[in-house]
Amino acid sequence: MIVDVKSPVPSDIEIAQAAKLRPIREVAADVGLSEDDIDFFGKYKAKVHLDVLKRMKDRPNAKYIDVTAITPTPLGEGKTTTTCGLSQALHYLGKTVFTCIRQPSQGPTFGIKGGAAGGGYSQIVPMEDFNLHLTGDTHAVGAANNLLAAAIDARILHEDRRSDARLRTILCPNDTFAPWMYKRLEKLGIKAGKPSELSPEDLHRFIRLDIDPYSITLNRVVDVNDRAVRNVVIGLGTSSDGRPRQTGFDITVASEVMAILMMASSLKDLRERVGRMVIGTDKKGNAVTAEDLGAAGAMTVLLKDALMPNLMQTLSGAGAFVHTGPFANIAPGNSSVIADMIGIKLASGGYLVTESGFGADIGMEKFFDIKCRASGLIPNCVVIVATVRALKMHGGGPKVVAGIPLDAAYMTENLELLEKGIANLAANIGFAKKFGIPVVVAVNRFKTDTKKELQMVKDAAKAAGAFGAEVSEHWGRGEEGAVALAEAVIEACEQPSDFKFLYPLDMPIKEKIEIIATQIYGADGVDFAPAAQDKLKLYTNLGFDKLPICMAKTHLSLSHDPAWKGVPKDYSLPVRDIRASAGAGFLYPLCGTMRTMPGLPSRPVFMDIDVDLETGKVVGLS
Amino acid sequence: MIVDVKSPVPSDIEIAQAAKLRPIREVAADVGLSEDDIDFFGKYKAKVHLDVLKRMKDRPNAKYIDVTAITPTPLGEGKTTTTCGLSQALHYLGKTVFTCIRQPSQGPTFGIKGGAAGGGYSQIVPMEDFNLHLTGDTHAVGAANNLLAAAIDARILHEDRRSDARLRTILCPNDTFAPWMYKRLEKLGIKAGKPSELSPEDLHRFIRLDIDPYSITLNRVVDVNDRAVRNVVIGLGTSSDGRPRQTGFDITVASEVMAILMMASSLKDLRERVGRMVIGTDKKGNAVTAEDLGAAGAMTVLLKDALMPNLMQTLSGAGAFVHTGPFANIAPGNSSVIADMIGIKLASGGYLVTESGFGADIGMEKFFDIKCRASGLIPNCVVIVATVRALKMHGGGPKVVAGIPLDAAYMTENLELLEKGIANLAANIGFAKKFGIPVVVAVNRFKTDTKKELQMVKDAAKAAGAFGAEVSEHWGRGEEGAVALAEAVIEACEQPSDFKFLYPLDMPIKEKIEIIATQIYGADGVDFAPAAQDKLKLYTNLGFDKLPICMAKTHLSLSHDPAWKGVPKDYSLPVRDIRASAGAGFLYPLCGTMRTMPGLPSRPVFMDIDVDLETGKVVGLS
Repeated sequence: MIVDVKSPVPSDIEIAQAAKLRPIREVAADVGLSEDDIDFFGKYKAKVHLDVLKRMKDRPNAKYIDVTAITPTPLGEGKTTTTCGLSQALHYLGKTVFTCIRQPSQGPTFGIKGGAAGGGYSQIVPMEDFNLHLTGDTHAVGAANNLLAAAIDARILHEDRRSDARLRTILCPNDTFAPWMYKRLEKLGIKAGKPSELSPEDLHRFIRLDIDPYSITLNRVVDVNDRAVRNVVIGLGTSSDGRPRQTGFDITVASEVMAILMMASSLKDLRERVGRMVIGTDKKGNAVTAEDLGAAGAMTVLLKDALMPNLMQTLSGAGAFVHTGPFANIAPGNSSVIADMIGIKLASGGYLVTESGFGADIGMEKFFDIKCRASGLIPNCVVIVATVRALKMHGGGPKVVAGIPLDAAYMTENLELLEKGIANLAANIGFAKKFGIPVVVAVNRFKTDTKKELQMVKDAAKAAGAFGAEVSEHWGRGEEGAVALAEAVIEACEQPSDFKFLYPLDMPIKEKIEIIATQIYGADGVDFAPAAQDKLKLYTNLGFDKLPICMAKTHLSLSHDPAWKGVPKDYSLPVRDIRASAGAGFLYPLCGTMRTMPGLPSRPVFMDIDVDLETGKVVGLS
Repeated sequence: MIVDVKSPVPSDIEIAQAAKLRPIREVAADVGLSEDDIDFFGKYKAKVHLDVLKRMKDRPNAKYIDVTAITPTPLGEGKTTTTCGLSQALHYLGKTVFTCIRQPSQGPTFGIKGGAAGGGYSQIVPMEDFNLHLTGDTHAVGAANNLLAAAIDARILHEDRRSDARLRTILCPNDTFAPWMYKRLEKLGIKAGKPSELSPEDLHRFIRLDIDPYSITLNRVVDVNDRAVRNVVIGLGTSSDGRPRQTGFDITVASEVMAILMMASSLKDLRERVGRMVIGTDKKGNAVTAEDLGAAGAMTVLLKDALMPNLMQTLSGAGAFVHTGPFANIAPGNSSVIADMIGIKLASGGYLVTESGFGADIGMEKFFDIKCRASGLIPNCVVIVATVRALKMHGGGPKVVAGIPLDAAYMTENLELLEKGIANLAANIGFAKKFGIPVVVAVNRFKTDTKKELQMVKDAAKAAGAFGAEVSEHWGRGEEGAVALAEAVIEACEQPSDFKFLYPLDMPIKEKIEIIATQIYGADGVDFAPAAQDKLKLYTNLGFDKLPICMAKTHLSLSHDPAWKGVPKDYSLPVRDIRASAGAGFLYPLCGTMRTMPGLPSRPVFMDIDVDLETGKVVGLS
């Protein structure tokens, strides 16, 4: 550890600022990266060049571990903290280890939640950078998204004002097609050597995108919790200020561009995915893409550095990638494909610990069926984080609400509640086993948990088929607190595994959704609302039916209803609509209303954040 | 030079990409900066720590040179290019030299204008980084601005829903005032040990900002040319989505936060300026600040890294700071105070070349009266960039419009037009001399300029009182092309100077504006519209009358009317309104309508920008 463990445990930022960080140059050198392989961002952060993948392609892969959780309380059960703690313990045991986690959004950092770099003695450092700009990737995502948004409204305005012939001379100077225009010509089935050779009909189809303003699904984004821009009317003013239309802003991390950055496996793949982004349709219903707008190249330019994973360190001083932060409902909620692809080579001979968002029903399922499919990597072990607190909630305990003190039921021994709730753990273990991967349960210990309670969880985990189950105290004790967990994980990684996806891609969309609903969520079936039924047809016709499914569902229940705790049964999963992220490469059925722009509470945490003017250090970040 | 000069001159990006960049570590070492003084951003960019100022405080200042221009055509007359060329030539002559320029906005990079890193063989490199994210400073400005904007609408919403007592328990947990709250208590003249001790009246005044939604002047920002968000209605949806109101988005660089970053001379100064930002008034007309909202600390945290100047290099391989990009009309249009303060020490014994935006009537006047006042630095020489093209325009030549080929009058010898237009040059030379600083005129040569034309400009410059006047060919020839200019500048810097501000700060607002209008713009007087007259009183009452004046005026004429070329006379300058940037620290009278959000043209330059997937290099950036 690069920090001394103290008791009582200081605040996260105090621990992080007390750590003696290793120069990132040395952290990089540990895993075979030279200074030519990285771009420094100060002394303690770096971006890793993608071409190391080529150089290291013959290295054997590290063992690949996904950290997930049972169905959490609204407080979260310590997944990132456990991810860091497990990594630190593997390092303590002398193993080569690398960690991959998501970058948080600045919105929650200043809103309700505060930071997300782990906690206590299990953290990624420097935690201020982690929770703030880091290396600017989220800003790059916002810039790319908003360039595309501006391009849409500008195009509508300019098409309104010009004839086909005038548009041709403006958009095709020197009677030449720009390189990206050939993709549109091909899509439209038009063959022409020069723009001037197009027939009037073909010119009209080619030069005019004819975007239907009511069809536009691309929102603008900001990386702030700003509820006031959820629903806006833009284009007011004069005729030169565009045409009025209603639209909205999402938080940057909810954008498809962020999901694309997470899914891309190379610069070429990134360029193609960006080009495929559908922003809406023309007035005949045909999809209009970023490529059609001529914006995909510039967007890729804005994103090219953001595609390189960000190297930081755990409190062990070992390497960690912090990369991409897509939502876990409308997007896969995992750190990037490219970070895992590189990390698994950097940790060759050892362990790559990665984290997936929300509980196993969502984050882990998407990790397997979407992320592993994109990366081609096969996991060796799943760690499911469980807490006595959450299991008591699933057993019928009082409501857990962020910002309100916990009920006494959670602070004193209550084996009855716990026993009733333990079915949720068993269900989650079962999900991982369906994919053929050994499971280790990490019981993230809180100080009020009793020995009997902890033992009950361990016993239940093994009874449900977990390969191992260990109590872990990494939050308060750091690496030493997670040694038993790490040893169980090491052993689990040596077990034979039989990895399989939950569904094949060439299955009809409807069946893919039904498999997830019945096999994972425990539903009897799926109710497709009329809008969703229309989309089943539309996306099949558009050829999007070979895409994987990214369920947009609450993480607070295995079902679609956040109030249903434990293991809900005897219900039908309602799918009210289905959307496509054609660029990122998945369909996302909506099981409820997904909020894509949080709001600020009455007392946002930004009110405590400031700079110490003597030291220049950040204070009040939690 | 770190690149070989070729003829014909290749495109800017080809020259930039052909350059053999020196590692920024070496560039830093040349001026006495160790690796502990800088934070690397890759191999060719770094941020310089502010504490070098303390260490270098006893070093003598370098000679301080401001590069400005005559009243330009809409195409620009090559000020940045001349700044780079002059620096490169000083370096060629064996002098220690450092360059400070502004960072451009990404909006124009993808819109009409393209890049702004200089041009030809006089550039800052790497030019892709220069024109794109660089180190993320503009993104940080946007994040800070938009956090404040979200805080405003959230506060209005939450105040609407809560009683004074409830607001007190929420905003002052544990019956404690947050540190920043004491500034508000002091402002309100309230003394209280604890929140619970406030009288109902004092609590009401303290806890409720009571923001008047119609008074809010703070816009949200994006760094994209997006005309569709100039005028918007936000807060639509349900009651939990905020309250509807009309507002707008500016381009990020037009924000007061960007101006604050430019003006700040230390982290402490930055924190104070951010806190003083006025976002609007309460319903009684009292100013509401970022400090009142409790957002100033978090905003400073977002900006603290952005305050460090960005070190890059010229095509000489010598150091250059690229830092901050405030507008030149509603803001001072100069690179940062802090970059010049550090640069003048780094170039000790040599020369610091800095650039101010627009022509001498605006950028240079603000450089002297606003920037030099904030930094305490005294310039030694002003370089005025002139072109035969622009002077012909001032002599009555045909209209010059971006994107439309130049009239023949500009491509062939026309001494008559030139002679008529030369008064504009003489006027600009006169402005610099009013400040007591020697002037060198740089005639930025275009290939169609004839010897007679160039000689006429040189002669006229000297007749108007310029210390020197030289033809410069840095664009096509690099450092060697600007040797004569550099030699003249070296000599000018040895001349005695008698620097004085145009006006003292304690003069009434009205008189300060009148002095600028009559002494610089050549007006007979000023017409203050009723709104402006009201502001004269208001700002005097608010104590803002000691601030310097930042005129918001077109750069295309010495007057307020862009169509009036040459040296307009016999007119009165209309001031339609006056605004305050209380945080940045200036008043800006509006002489016309200032656009703070550009739009995208019919064929934006982003359509040519892409990534070469083989090399990973940017193509099409110009």
